[in-house]
Amino acid sequence: MVDVHTDLLTAQALAERLLITAGVPAPAAAQQAELLVVAEAKGMPSHGLLRLPRLLRRLANGTASPTSTGRHHWSGPSYLTVDGEQGLGPVVAVRALEAIVPAAEQYGVAVCSITNNNHLGMLGYYAGRMADRGLVCLGITTSEALVHPWGGTEAMLGTNPLALAVPARPAPLVLDMATSQISMGKVHDHALRGVPLEPGWALDAKGNETIDPDAAKDGSIAPFGGAKGYGLGLGLGAMVTFLTGAAYGTAVGGTLDDDHLSNKGDLFILLSGGGGRHSTTEYLDQVRRSRPADPASPVAVPGDGARTRYHESVAHGIEIADDLWRELTALDAERREAVLAD
Amino acid sequence: MVDVHTDLLTAQALAERLLITAGVPAPAAAQQAELLVVAEAKGMPSHGLLRLPRLLRRLANGTASPTSTGRHHWSGPSYLTVDGEQGLGPVVAVRALEAIVPAAEQYGVAVCSITNNNHLGMLGYYAGRMADRGLVCLGITTSEALVHPWGGTEAMLGTNPLALAVPARPAPLVLDMATSQISMGKVHDHALRGVPLEPGWALDAKGNETIDPDAAKDGSIAPFGGAKGYGLGLGLGAMVTFLTGAAYGTAVGGTLDDDHLSNKGDLFILLSGGGGRHSTTEYLDQVRRSRPADPASPVAVPGDGARTRYHESVAHGIEIADDLWRELTALDAERREAVLAD
Repeated sequence: MVDVHTDLLTAQALAERLLITAGVPAPAAAQQAELLVVAEAKGMPSHGLLRLPRLLRRLANGTASPTSTGRHHWSGPSYLTVDGEQGLGPVVAVRALEAIVPAAEQYGVAVCSITNNNHLGMLGYYAGRMADRGLVCLGITTSEALVHPWGGTEAMLGTNPLALAVPARPAPLVLDMATSQISMGKVHDHALRGVPLEPGWALDAKGNETIDPDAAKDGSIAPFGGAKGYGLGLGLGAMVTFLTGAAYGTAVGGTLDDDHLSNKGDLFILLSGGGGRHSTTEYLDQVRRSRPADPASPVAVPGDGARTRYHESVAHGIEIADDLWRELTALDAERREAVLAD
Repeated sequence: MVDVHTDLLTAQALAERLLITAGVPAPAAAQQAELLVVAEAKGMPSHGLLRLPRLLRRLANGTASPTSTGRHHWSGPSYLTVDGEQGLGPVVAVRALEAIVPAAEQYGVAVCSITNNNHLGMLGYYAGRMADRGLVCLGITTSEALVHPWGGTEAMLGTNPLALAVPARPAPLVLDMATSQISMGKVHDHALRGVPLEPGWALDAKGNETIDPDAAKDGSIAPFGGAKGYGLGLGLGAMVTFLTGAAYGTAVGGTLDDDHLSNKGDLFILLSGGGGRHSTTEYLDQVRRSRPADPASPVAVPGDGARTRYHESVAHGIEIADDLWRELTALDAERREAVLAD
């Protein structure tokens, strides 16, 4: 496969046009497109334009709503409960986050708990955006059961990602990590390229260790970091389940398929305050300046790499997999013909 | 070394007497003693009675206050800022947590941010206690720089533990984990017993990998789970630094020494709500019932092991290292003589 080179604005415009054609209002289309393109720009293609064809099919078949922005209910002065009503993930989530910013500033902390919302995409996007505004943000979301417990052999947990952003200058710390060792996307990528997995990454459907990516597709992937990573992934999943009342375990669907309503839960916590605003910047700089293992690779703080890649992508453009780009431009050509035929 | 067998009540009474003799009021002495004894009972001796002689020295030299319970300032309706005024960790923390429970119930979420407080001990104790009352609890605390960054070679991070508890029946999920691969206590234990470390656990002072525990004592220990564990540990540390304004990195002291004032930060977040109260119990039971890798070892949920050990300790008592027990009983004999001499 050869990659196609494009610039961010072209990719963003293409995604926006396709979403608008699917019935999404222009501002919402821009928001959803931005999430996909920023993921490409930050070097996270698994959360990038790859997701767009599925999203368009979901908009076409009604499992995603082009116009819902979420129904808001304040369960308490600092606790917003949101029924996403199957809207687009970023549209519902950004509106919910904006709604709780004043509460976080007034009360010191605020939460939004979201159900029935489509895939959020790159979780660090939301957290970083809040940290840019001076708030600590913790974001958690559940997902389809793909990960086996530590000491277990069946897929019982989502890859349950965690985003944590802390304000600092010139840029916040932005942690964005799945609690699995690898993503199922990586398993599929290895299968496609015929490259074996590394030992310890996955189990087959019978629960035996495997390095065969095709066997792993029907099996499960490992939690990261052994018992602790498993504990963290399950703990975060249980926290979201408890607070949102969303589906859990093997009943979660709708972020990796075309046909199921999205029934996972999303949770964001915003904290204001910041007696240590200045110290945080100092501390992160001390960590960056500490002695690296490889003199050619300075120590990085979470978010540093993604930020560098983003600036490089803004300056020099991004590479999109050839077949994905073909699919998107073919859809765009259909759209153009339909418009001309009108 | 031979261990001494004792029961929980005897150990608790001994610790209480020693704390009271050091000037701690009886209810506070009971609280501090409970933290130490419950840690022993749950199989976490690194947070157990081992800590008591140091605490008594700190009470004697004024780096720990026997009577402070923390000065409370509400920064916002759901955000309590606490100056621990060098009180005993559990005394200050339990009072702060109790103070924010009503806010969490009224507003949906509440936070306490604590500085100048002595060592909390087992973090899962606090989280589990809150979950028993129907609240989700997230607890984070910073600590002395012992952990090197991913790709780094100097101790720049604390072992920054995380506790997360989620209500469920018959018992909550209680995650309690350091973000380091091992504890520095384990390094010292290996050094004492002359047992080499496992590869990947530690670096020496020059930043080279080592399995020599004596070399590692002056070096640094690894974050758990590679880049992700490092990101989590630093992210949580930066969050506490930002919100509390406490000391950070190599400037943290007072939980592993006799002489420094304790200047780390502690943070707790309580969340009420619970649309998924019933689902959480169901989910955790599904995980426990899922197929284990070893038929003899059922899949466990965080907290299960500690709970089982606790019940065994209540029924059958605990083992305390012989030299530690000698030290504590000698101190108790001194106390008794002093009382008789009065």
